Amino acid sequence: MDVAAATERIAVPRYLVVTAGILLEGDLRGHPSHGLRRLDVLVQRIRNGLAQPATQPALTWSADGVLNVDGRMGLGPPVAFRALDALAGRVARTGIAVAAIRDANHLGMLAPYVELLAGKRLIGIGLTTSEALVHPWGGARAMVGTNPVAIAVPTAGPPVLLDMATGQISMGKVLDFAARGVPLPGGVAVDENGQPTTDANAAVRGAISPFGGAKGYALSVALEALVALLTRTALGPDVRGTLDATERCTKGDVFIAIDPRAVGAADTAALDAYLTLLRRSDPAPGHEAVTVPGDRARSAREQSLAGGVPVLSATWERVLAIAEEVSLDMTAPPGGN
Amino acid sequence: MDVAAATERIAVPRYLVVTAGILLEGDLRGHPSHGLRRLDVLVQRIRNGLAQPATQPALTWSADGVLNVDGRMGLGPPVAFRALDALAGRVARTGIAVAAIRDANHLGMLAPYVELLAGKRLIGIGLTTSEALVHPWGGARAMVGTNPVAIAVPTAGPPVLLDMATGQISMGKVLDFAARGVPLPGGVAVDENGQPTTDANAAVRGAISPFGGAKGYALSVALEALVALLTRTALGPDVRGTLDATERCTKGDVFIAIDPRAVGAADTAALDAYLTLLRRSDPAPGHEAVTVPGDRARSAREQSLAGGVPVLSATWERVLAIAEEVSLDMTAPPGGN
Repeated sequence: MDVAAATERIAVPRYLVVTAGILLEGDLRGHPSHGLRRLDVLVQRIRNGLAQPATQPALTWSADGVLNVDGRMGLGPPVAFRALDALAGRVARTGIAVAAIRDANHLGMLAPYVELLAGKRLIGIGLTTSEALVHPWGGARAMVGTNPVAIAVPTAGPPVLLDMATGQISMGKVLDFAARGVPLPGGVAVDENGQPTTDANAAVRGAISPFGGAKGYALSVALEALVALLTRTALGPDVRGTLDATERCTKGDVFIAIDPRAVGAADTAALDAYLTLLRRSDPAPGHEAVTVPGDRARSAREQSLAGGVPVLSATWERVLAIAEEVSLDMTAPPGGN
Repeated sequence: MDVAAATERIAVPRYLVVTAGILLEGDLRGHPSHGLRRLDVLVQRIRNGLAQPATQPALTWSADGVLNVDGRMGLGPPVAFRALDALAGRVARTGIAVAAIRDANHLGMLAPYVELLAGKRLIGIGLTTSEALVHPWGGARAMVGTNPVAIAVPTAGPPVLLDMATGQISMGKVLDFAARGVPLPGGVAVDENGQPTTDANAAVRGAISPFGGAKGYALSVALEALVALLTRTALGPDVRGTLDATERCTKGDVFIAIDPRAVGAADTAALDAYLTLLRRSDPAPGHEAVTVPGDRARSAREQSLAGGVPVLSATWERVLAIAEEVSLDMTAPPGGN
């Protein structure tokens, strides 16, 4: 999906191209909750002055391996890509570097960012905090972010590519179950009293359960603490502005890049052999095959590119309406990037 | 538990003191699978020449932020502490640094290592690979390590301290259920055909299930790939020497240290306030209170120090027998450290 090429003939600034590209990647990879469905809120945030697409982030190397990024209310994707470019340049010398990003808008899916690092033969780790929609293990209230984590490790083929939220289910999916009047699977959410529920409407008033019980909860809190401390951003119920159109975005993002060549580990042969062994290993009864992190999303992406992407008609109508509303702005961008 | 003070009067080399200290921490924190129970195999490994306590690891800064550590068959704890000392010194300048450790023996619990970094007001991440005891999500065979992950984030009080394996249960616990003839909880293991089982003996011949289903499996594989690539160590079924007394240890360890002061984030007030909010939040029906990662182990440790540690009589008898066997060596250590 070469968004850049498709928009070359019209004067669309690069920060909008990369942001549109990230949204499309959500739909292409089978995660519509991070796809075009987000465009409406994003445009509202721009109109409300909460996302300022044309501002330039301030990047400061506050230590030799630490990039301090003030997003200045910019769009998440272009700010993050600026930071990743800087990291990739730096690790050639330092071997490892971290970017701590504050005051930037929602990133969309994390996978494409760490995938970009893996494309440069780097190991990439991506973390971001998010609104408190998840209850603690043993807790009744929504207190913890869905705090996704992404890890990419280069191989001879496509990278090992993890991208997962630390909740059992996304709130987007819960809303989808509610809209369709279908009960939730068991164990993914609690009601407003902290009781497990399969009633999607009760779950909307309650909280999503952490994935993996006590361990998943602990992992999520540790990641939230790490990101919030390093980026000096909000925690728990103070995280705002990734789902709404009315509040400044207070979450933080952390990216870590590591160059395996720095320890003489450019050769991925052992890893490649292991991944082959995993994929060829016996599936459990009722399963077709064993996959490696990244396989399912990559397969979904290939199918989407070949056969098209299902987009809800309501979402598509909003996209068309927005395109019409902003057509003048699109041909007269407010600034370069 | 001041092991150092207790052994000051007898000539015990420091590498044995820190190793004993790590084993004791396992028992103190309520994880006997990583406690004194491991001493027997460790001593056998030393006798078989697979662990060489007195050798010095080779530490090389192969890039400004990357410490390449060849453990030279040394004991896991002293090699790791040497690496952590070097990391802590380096991040004062670079802000972030990583140690990639190969050819060192088992680390024991990961928590004390990252806790040491948090004690220096650093964020610590610890990863290690381990024998393939876990089946892939949708797979029937033991193909993935239990690959634990530890994260420590400093606060005004005790650190946020995550230390978890990525399997549903440890093989030590499965063996314990088998020995007692008690059925396993559901969903923690499969038999040799990949069918879920509560028969502990069948689970020993089968595999442990990944925690958190598809997500936990994907996280574990991503961590194993990251560690193995960076440390140039083995993956999956090729990982040996952390449980047996007959094979050279082929796993790898990775530690990352980050100095929050490098981004001007020395102030933990927001994190402290959030942790208080979490601990005071409403528990779910049937639960007493919400805890923060590290609370339960710290509470277990305090209870152990006050009331003593239960140790299996078989374990204790082995400890006493070993103490008698090696008494001469203990008073005439083979070298300094």
